[in-house]
Amino acid sequence: MMADAAYAPARIAIDARCGDARAGRLLVHGLEAPTPLFMPVGTLGTVKALGPDEIVRAGARVVLANAYHLLQRPGPDVIERHGGLHRFMAWDGGILTDSGGFQVFSLSGFRSVDDDGVTFAAPIDGSRTRLTPASVVDLQRRLGSDIAMVLDECPPATADRSRVEEAVRRSTLWARSALAAPRASGQALFGIVQGALDVGLRIAHLEETAAMGFDGVALGGFSVGEPPERRWPVVAEIGPRMPADHPRYLMGIGTPLDLFHAVRAGIDLFDCVLPTRGARHGLAFTASGRIAVKQARFRDDTGPLEEGCPCPACTRFSRSYLRHLHTSGEILAARLLTEHNLTFFQRWMGTLRTAVVAGTLDTLESAASAAGEPLD
Amino acid sequence: MMADAAYAPARIAIDARCGDARAGRLLVHGLEAPTPLFMPVGTLGTVKALGPDEIVRAGARVVLANAYHLLQRPGPDVIERHGGLHRFMAWDGGILTDSGGFQVFSLSGFRSVDDDGVTFAAPIDGSRTRLTPASVVDLQRRLGSDIAMVLDECPPATADRSRVEEAVRRSTLWARSALAAPRASGQALFGIVQGALDVGLRIAHLEETAAMGFDGVALGGFSVGEPPERRWPVVAEIGPRMPADHPRYLMGIGTPLDLFHAVRAGIDLFDCVLPTRGARHGLAFTASGRIAVKQARFRDDTGPLEEGCPCPACTRFSRSYLRHLHTSGEILAARLLTEHNLTFFQRWMGTLRTAVVAGTLDTLESAASAAGEPLD
Repeated sequence: MMADAAYAPARIAIDARCGDARAGRLLVHGLEAPTPLFMPVGTLGTVKALGPDEIVRAGARVVLANAYHLLQRPGPDVIERHGGLHRFMAWDGGILTDSGGFQVFSLSGFRSVDDDGVTFAAPIDGSRTRLTPASVVDLQRRLGSDIAMVLDECPPATADRSRVEEAVRRSTLWARSALAAPRASGQALFGIVQGALDVGLRIAHLEETAAMGFDGVALGGFSVGEPPERRWPVVAEIGPRMPADHPRYLMGIGTPLDLFHAVRAGIDLFDCVLPTRGARHGLAFTASGRIAVKQARFRDDTGPLEEGCPCPACTRFSRSYLRHLHTSGEILAARLLTEHNLTFFQRWMGTLRTAVVAGTLDTLESAASAAGEPLD
Repeated sequence: MMADAAYAPARIAIDARCGDARAGRLLVHGLEAPTPLFMPVGTLGTVKALGPDEIVRAGARVVLANAYHLLQRPGPDVIERHGGLHRFMAWDGGILTDSGGFQVFSLSGFRSVDDDGVTFAAPIDGSRTRLTPASVVDLQRRLGSDIAMVLDECPPATADRSRVEEAVRRSTLWARSALAAPRASGQALFGIVQGALDVGLRIAHLEETAAMGFDGVALGGFSVGEPPERRWPVVAEIGPRMPADHPRYLMGIGTPLDLFHAVRAGIDLFDCVLPTRGARHGLAFTASGRIAVKQARFRDDTGPLEEGCPCPACTRFSRSYLRHLHTSGEILAARLLTEHNLTFFQRWMGTLRTAVVAGTLDTLESAASAAGEPLD
């Protein structure tokens, strides 16, 4: 029995608008997650360094896992035997599974793509993994995630136009196969729009994708090497044209400023490794800017990481202690900084949401900018 | 202000005896910790992978930190600025600080000993650290631990008799200096008995140490290379001769079977890295034996690590998930296995205590033996 068999497919309810921006609720896995929504990354069925209680305490209600990586280990048979990914990782919130399309980009040295799918060769032992649009949906059916993503082809930012056109053509072909494949009961399927930084290609692919009848539409193919300043105008053009009655998801983004620009463009859902990976490298996000906790100036700093933050790192420990843990390679550093960064990102989404409701989103641009920069 | 200034020095109240074994309560830091008591190791001011809440949830009330290592980093000035180690690590239970005497053994390639103290050379940059009996008490005064340990000289198991006699002579000399040094308000000071596996030397040194008026007496110089079977008879001879009205502490020990033998000999307090370090290497203790969670047989095992264990690893996750986390190098594996192992050790101490009260301690020998062996 799948843990989420009783729920209707994920959908969005919009509560307020401010320009193109939307504030709403993602209805998923029997709960209502306020949007704009940031989903922490839990690639292998664990948000690195955290247990389920801490994820909830940080304010997250939906996490992202990666079907491609879970196929490699532990394998879908293991997860199925537990009754699905929710039970395997003891997570009673929503789960979105990415398809492996991003790995077409990130593992580009280890795969070959054809019209029927993609073949990956493992970097170590050369063993082969074949993904097709239908097999990836079936994989996600077995994982029992709440939201499945189609397999797509994600070209790098440096790809020329003919290469991007080819990726768009193939992604459309694959999207049709994915839609025809059986899914788990109540499982949503989102399409993915490619087109790199070419607004014309993006609009054309969005129109094709939107017409197919997905439960939601995502923008893929960003954060693949392009400067953020080139990304924002493209998202600003495409976001408002995405289906208004479905969730809109920008994949793999981003900094507080990225999130501001994307929310202003009407995007609802986000995921990014930045808060979690950054934490493991000793980076803490604060409203005043990014902090590298190893810095010597924190050695004697008995104050909290961020004044007013409700997370355990800030309410119970000092910057000095966090610096000590991080510079000593202590596991608790990764855990506390991850809790802080996720709490910061959830609070930032709350700030954006409140501003959308209040009609004051534009006033947040300088705050968004400050939060992404290194603290002096 | 020291966090623990209001408390009386640690002492023990004995509730029951069974042969030489004792069941009681360590009165420390304003709380009563049932004895026999296992203290998790938190060398650098963190029980590796756990926050304070998990330490409490595992049943631990007193932790051990290491004054020598805390001197290296972050330094006592940093900890003093926080108002002491309790506040620095946000731990409101008891703290015992080891003196650095064990490092005379474990860092034997990097130190020279004379009658006034020991000089360590840092393995990397060669910088020197001088410890004297008085400076180590002063260091622990600044840390504000509840129980301070004297500086001692800990010879290896392979040392010849004259070398052990020399260590005993020096440890006695140092103990007198330590007793004369000012301590924090309410801070207890424990003496340490050396003498390797020589019962005569051990008894003589115990008599000297017991006569000095410490708040408690410890046995050092075990688990320094000797086989457990040679340790137990020595502990069996010495334990019952230790002062009856003070806490008796066996340092750095041990397996469930070690703990059984030592409790039978009348020891009250223990610390050991085994449950915490083992956890980070994927070793889980259970009543049926030790488990290496990476084993392939656990790939599909949806059952708990140990049936009936109340820890989060056992109540919320499967062996299969723990194996997946550990083999994937996920931080959550270290955390969950540490919680389990500490819970197991606390429950084991509870089992021993109950048996002392019931007068049935001897019946636990085979259970003690089973818990320490690898599970078939």
